[in-house]
Amino acid sequence: MGYALLDLTTDPPQLLDHGLVATPRFGSAAEKLVAIADAIDGLIATHSPAYLALERLYFNKNVKTAMAVAEARGVALVCGARAGLVIAEYTPQEVKQSVTGSGGADKRAVQRMIVHLLELAEPITQDNVADAIAIALTHAQRVKFADAVASAK
Amino acid sequence: MGYALLDLTTDPPQLLDHGLVATPRFGSAAEKLVAIADAIDGLIATHSPAYLALERLYFNKNVKTAMAVAEARGVALVCGARAGLVIAEYTPQEVKQSVTGSGGADKRAVQRMIVHLLELAEPITQDNVADAIAIALTHAQRVKFADAVASAK
Repeated sequence: MGYALLDLTTDPPQLLDHGLVATPRFGSAAEKLVAIADAIDGLIATHSPAYLALERLYFNKNVKTAMAVAEARGVALVCGARAGLVIAEYTPQEVKQSVTGSGGADKRAVQRMIVHLLELAEPITQDNVADAIAIALTHAQRVKFADAVASAK
Repeated sequence: MGYALLDLTTDPPQLLDHGLVATPRFGSAAEKLVAIADAIDGLIATHSPAYLALERLYFNKNVKTAMAVAEARGVALVCGARAGLVIAEYTPQEVKQSVTGSGGADKRAVQRMIVHLLELAEPITQDNVADAIAIALTHAQRVKFADAVASAK
């Protein structure tokens, strides 16, 4: 599971942390999920974020993968909600639209735009990490827009 | 989500507790999952069980339902694993086979056998609760068999 933490008080947002949660390769489903829960709890304790943005899950051709992802999603939702975070969910299409301007953009286009928009010194090459950054950035853009609307009232 | 707690030190096992976890009807997915996590944590704290038996999830025609069930399963697995419970999973067919002797038994047959095997004073009419009792009973029968094998060594 990829993760990314953005500081929204700067412009552009600053990428505070990002990576992949390590899960025990030969562990049971429960052991892997506990590793994910521990990692998310640790990131929340370290960074005290206000929001948790997740990918909204749709049908996946690989049912077994979809189930495992849904299990991890449930764990992440409980970690976030118990810590009082505001939770947001975006479809892959919403994320692509928000980051690149096109809902049909491919992974490479998303990865290029992340580097551009966040002014990163290095490219993000791991798909799950790039996805996590793109989801966080999508939420950052929504929050910024909501603030702009609020201040224009 | 239905739940059931069995005391395996008696013969037949004693049904200590059973019911449905109440979730906020108009709550978000995260709020419902937190209610489930809190309920499971509470049941574990009250009864200190040694095992957690869950239904193994397979493909469901209703993808949205399957995803919600998988999210709740992920939460239950983390609650159980963090509390140090031994986790077991059974397919619906294994449960029917174990409780009724036939993997193709219908819900009514399972419900009748639960009442018979556990010598319950009243029938269990809620499907999710009956399923939870049947899953716990399946695990009780496996544990009993494993003990019998061990003592026959």
